[in-house]
Amino acid sequence: MPRPETPLLTVDVVIELLDRTGEIVLIERRHEPVGFALPGGFVDVGEAVERAAVREAKEETGLDVTLIDLLGVYSDPARDALGHTVSVVFVGRAHGVPEGGDDAKRAGGCRPESPPTLVFDHARIISDYLTWRRREANSLRGC
Amino acid sequence: MPRPETPLLTVDVVIELLDRTGEIVLIERRHEPVGFALPGGFVDVGEAVERAAVREAKEETGLDVTLIDLLGVYSDPARDALGHTVSVVFVGRAHGVPEGGDDAKRAGGCRPESPPTLVFDHARIISDYLTWRRREANSLRGC
Repeated sequence: MPRPETPLLTVDVVIELLDRTGEIVLIERRHEPVGFALPGGFVDVGEAVERAAVREAKEETGLDVTLIDLLGVYSDPARDALGHTVSVVFVGRAHGVPEGGDDAKRAGGCRPESPPTLVFDHARIISDYLTWRRREANSLRGC
Repeated sequence: MPRPETPLLTVDVVIELLDRTGEIVLIERRHEPVGFALPGGFVDVGEAVERAAVREAKEETGLDVTLIDLLGVYSDPARDALGHTVSVVFVGRAHGVPEGGDDAKRAGGCRPESPPTLVFDHARIISDYLTWRRREANSLRGC
């Protein structure tokens, strides 16, 4: 059978900054669509999504991220005006101070309750992250 | 920027049969690799992963599936010998009796604790599903 065409695959990471409690990392994109976004990028053929997420986080923020959970898979065909991309989104944690690199002009900490305007569907992803964080806090208390 | 090449994207579904408590649906594949597998297939460009999962389940089992959770994303480059595919796997539920169709020669109910030999990494997925099911049962009891 011929190999079919499927949507392009990306990863994004909500990085919790362990040294700045309550903040996550946002980047300012160098390429279209420019604006604020979560760190992330395309998955390479031959690369597991977890490895792609750690690699992209390192390239765009300089941070060594430990992934702690899968937040979700975002696949609305309209989420990227340049073409259909599907993003696998992780929550991760890192020590240190983010510094922009590669496709990220800048990187910095941000309180997710009051983010700036974001590109793609990243506002929805951050809203889902806040739901995840509340549930996570509850399940710790319940143990 | 040129559009990069990324792994091919698939979906698979662990379908719980509501009329045969404790059983899930397996199919027997018509194409290589032949053998038993979870229902699933390639995501079309322009199609959300949830829609692809419901469509593939219908084509291969005849069942109208309601998705209830995202089980995980499976992306080991070695999981499909024919090339790198990444599968987004859902848990779903359906009434009725499965009947093989499209790429599935046959479809039927199976107790996930004792599945036959499965192709790809579907044995691992079913093992993860059993963990998910135990946690799900616990969280219901805890509410």
